[in-house]
Amino acid sequence: MWAWTVRAAIAALLLLGMPGAVLGAAGDEHGRFGPILFGLAVLVVAAKAGGLIVQRWGQPSVLGELLVGIALGNLLPPLFGQTGIAFVRGNATLFVLAEMGVLILLFDVGLEADLRALVRVGWSSLLVALVGIMVPLLLGWGAAAWLLPDSLTLTHVFVGATLSATSVGITARVLRDLGMVQTREGQIILGAAVMDDILGLVVLAVISGAVAAAATGGPGLSPLAIGGILLRAILFLGITVGVGHLLSQPIVRLAARTGQHGILLVFGLALCFSLAFAAELIGLADIIGAFAAGLMLDPFGEGIRTRKEEATLSELMHPLTSLFVPLFFVLMGIQVHLGSLASPNILTLGAVLILCALAGKLACALGVVGRGVNRLAVGIGMIPRGEVGLIFAGIGASLTLQGEPVLSQGAFSAIVLMVLVTTLLAPVGLRWAFRRSRQSAG
Amino acid sequence: MWAWTVRAAIAALLLLGMPGAVLGAAGDEHGRFGPILFGLAVLVVAAKAGGLIVQRWGQPSVLGELLVGIALGNLLPPLFGQTGIAFVRGNATLFVLAEMGVLILLFDVGLEADLRALVRVGWSSLLVALVGIMVPLLLGWGAAAWLLPDSLTLTHVFVGATLSATSVGITARVLRDLGMVQTREGQIILGAAVMDDILGLVVLAVISGAVAAAATGGPGLSPLAIGGILLRAILFLGITVGVGHLLSQPIVRLAARTGQHGILLVFGLALCFSLAFAAELIGLADIIGAFAAGLMLDPFGEGIRTRKEEATLSELMHPLTSLFVPLFFVLMGIQVHLGSLASPNILTLGAVLILCALAGKLACALGVVGRGVNRLAVGIGMIPRGEVGLIFAGIGASLTLQGEPVLSQGAFSAIVLMVLVTTLLAPVGLRWAFRRSRQSAG
Repeated sequence: MWAWTVRAAIAALLLLGMPGAVLGAAGDEHGRFGPILFGLAVLVVAAKAGGLIVQRWGQPSVLGELLVGIALGNLLPPLFGQTGIAFVRGNATLFVLAEMGVLILLFDVGLEADLRALVRVGWSSLLVALVGIMVPLLLGWGAAAWLLPDSLTLTHVFVGATLSATSVGITARVLRDLGMVQTREGQIILGAAVMDDILGLVVLAVISGAVAAAATGGPGLSPLAIGGILLRAILFLGITVGVGHLLSQPIVRLAARTGQHGILLVFGLALCFSLAFAAELIGLADIIGAFAAGLMLDPFGEGIRTRKEEATLSELMHPLTSLFVPLFFVLMGIQVHLGSLASPNILTLGAVLILCALAGKLACALGVVGRGVNRLAVGIGMIPRGEVGLIFAGIGASLTLQGEPVLSQGAFSAIVLMVLVTTLLAPVGLRWAFRRSRQSAG
Repeated sequence: MWAWTVRAAIAALLLLGMPGAVLGAAGDEHGRFGPILFGLAVLVVAAKAGGLIVQRWGQPSVLGELLVGIALGNLLPPLFGQTGIAFVRGNATLFVLAEMGVLILLFDVGLEADLRALVRVGWSSLLVALVGIMVPLLLGWGAAAWLLPDSLTLTHVFVGATLSATSVGITARVLRDLGMVQTREGQIILGAAVMDDILGLVVLAVISGAVAAAATGGPGLSPLAIGGILLRAILFLGITVGVGHLLSQPIVRLAARTGQHGILLVFGLALCFSLAFAAELIGLADIIGAFAAGLMLDPFGEGIRTRKEEATLSELMHPLTSLFVPLFFVLMGIQVHLGSLASPNILTLGAVLILCALAGKLACALGVVGRGVNRLAVGIGMIPRGEVGLIFAGIGASLTLQGEPVLSQGAFSAIVLMVLVTTLLAPVGLRWAFRRSRQSAG
């Protein structure tokens, strides 16, 4: 296994090095498509290599994809010059493709989410989710206000919001690896993580709405404005899911009637992109629309398909996710300037954010109702931020207010550090917590 | 079936109309990704609807996708204003996605092509292919020189080259529908169509290479330059296929070793995009690289996969092709200005090109060696230009020489007309030719 890993690492390093130089030399002199698609190929293969390596070490692949991105962004320029990386950083098309990956990912999360299961796990999950959103949000807000005193209040809130996310994907994968999905702890964690997704998206809607309002000279974070955005977000999710309940079956039947393999995929993605656009039009983040599209088509996570023997929509999307989702994470990694972490202030911010992220989610343990539940495991299970925290951070870096990005280069890097550490700690911590409870029980 | 078709047509019309207005109103004011991905959704759903409708009428879906594009490009502006269509026409990202579709399509054709089968059908296919390339090329060249006297010689040659293509995809589908794949005629047609692909790509390489040389003040169509490009194209195909014979198995084994579903897809597409870029770097068209990548990974069209029970690479790509390939054809249709066909000169050009396209491929019948073969069926089977002719035309419209596109708006529209008519005639004609021979035999 080690030999394989070393070989993969060497292959990855070669992949990182040479194409940068080639891309730089080619520039946009030759054709228009070649360099972009070649850049896509290099980034995705490098990301996949990184993901496979960390998977061999029992870590979620998003970690490897992110680390490869950081390596590419910070090792390539000193070794092979700026041109290759500058081309990738500045290419709008690659970012659209990465955004497509994020939308497909959130659409998939929406498809797999089961609204009935949420009701079943009930109060424990809701309380865990609420505590898990509010405590990290407030802790992160306070930390940012303390360590970034010159930034705007909205920046402080945004930093807090990135701490509030929980990664359903990573938590679910770790629980499955441990065989703990069907335990009471597992059900509470998964239920709370799904609610976290919904509540987190509402928080994101409120904050990015406030940024948009402030950018156009509006009141920003006034209670009335927050109420308005909250109402819009809830109405949007409610209406799409409600309408979806009526439209889902006819859409699947129509797709089945065409008798064409894969038409369900086209319908589904068209709905996903259309609702993402609709969410943008009413001032919400596009990922909210994508998530709503998933909930709309499959509110109970049963897996929709045109015929019994055919692949589900989620399976049909697999080739698209395996191509475009890693692209997003590797591009996020590339945006991290390790140099910006050298500032003592930013390094302190990173360390404090990590502590807030851990403490905030461990507080979730207090939300568990009932006895005989391994509360520590529930708290640790909520820790990984993974892709959701990164998506939030990416949105913060792309929003501007008074001519400055809401999340500065330094704040963005500190948040990515926090995402890396929390994602790394969760699998280790969960394994430890479950083993500990089994030993004390036995 | 008619009720279904009418309903689909109404749905398609609604799809065409409203989003154009919405997109126009949205502009690029809101976010950066929403309008692009929404445009993608609308175009792909409209294309799929068009494809499904013409399939019900026994026609290949590419025809419907193209017609929907023409309808969008020519009906939307007078009905809903220019903004929506102008956004789509001018969006670079959509064109990169469409180009991705074309590369994946050619990669797939390369994967499915069987070099051994070519040797088996032998001389008949080679002669049919050579006649089918040279005669339409010369006829089209002559027609363009006659009807576009003010254009450059390279434009005349390029028009001829678009006539030389044969669509393997359409021919194969029609033959399968008729149950004629295993007949001697079917084998000759398919063999010749695959050779046509290879020879056509070489012709394209020579001509686009000559355009590139002429653009930089070189000699253009000098015999020495042609020889050089021909040599490069043959070397490129020879080396990639030769190396591929050695590398194909290790790549598949490496993908299998990762134990990850879908990693073969990422490897394959990375190879496809990398070779496309390499082809561009040495002055060939990117589709040649994509086709070579397909031949390289699977020279005998056996279907590569990581494990016996898993999907083949070609099947893994299905979701990507069903999303991005229709995008290419609908965008090609959108580029057609029906107004430009109103010029008597261009209309004459279109009509003459159609005659040349029919006559040139019917001449293939003369290339058939041996007796008892339905020569007429072979000739008709070579007629459809389909996607290959369109890809050539698209490249011609994107290349510039002396500040003008090599294919003018009018010439492009005339060629699309030719592609539409030949693609429409082939299924009808083949059915007729096979029935006729059966009746005379019986």
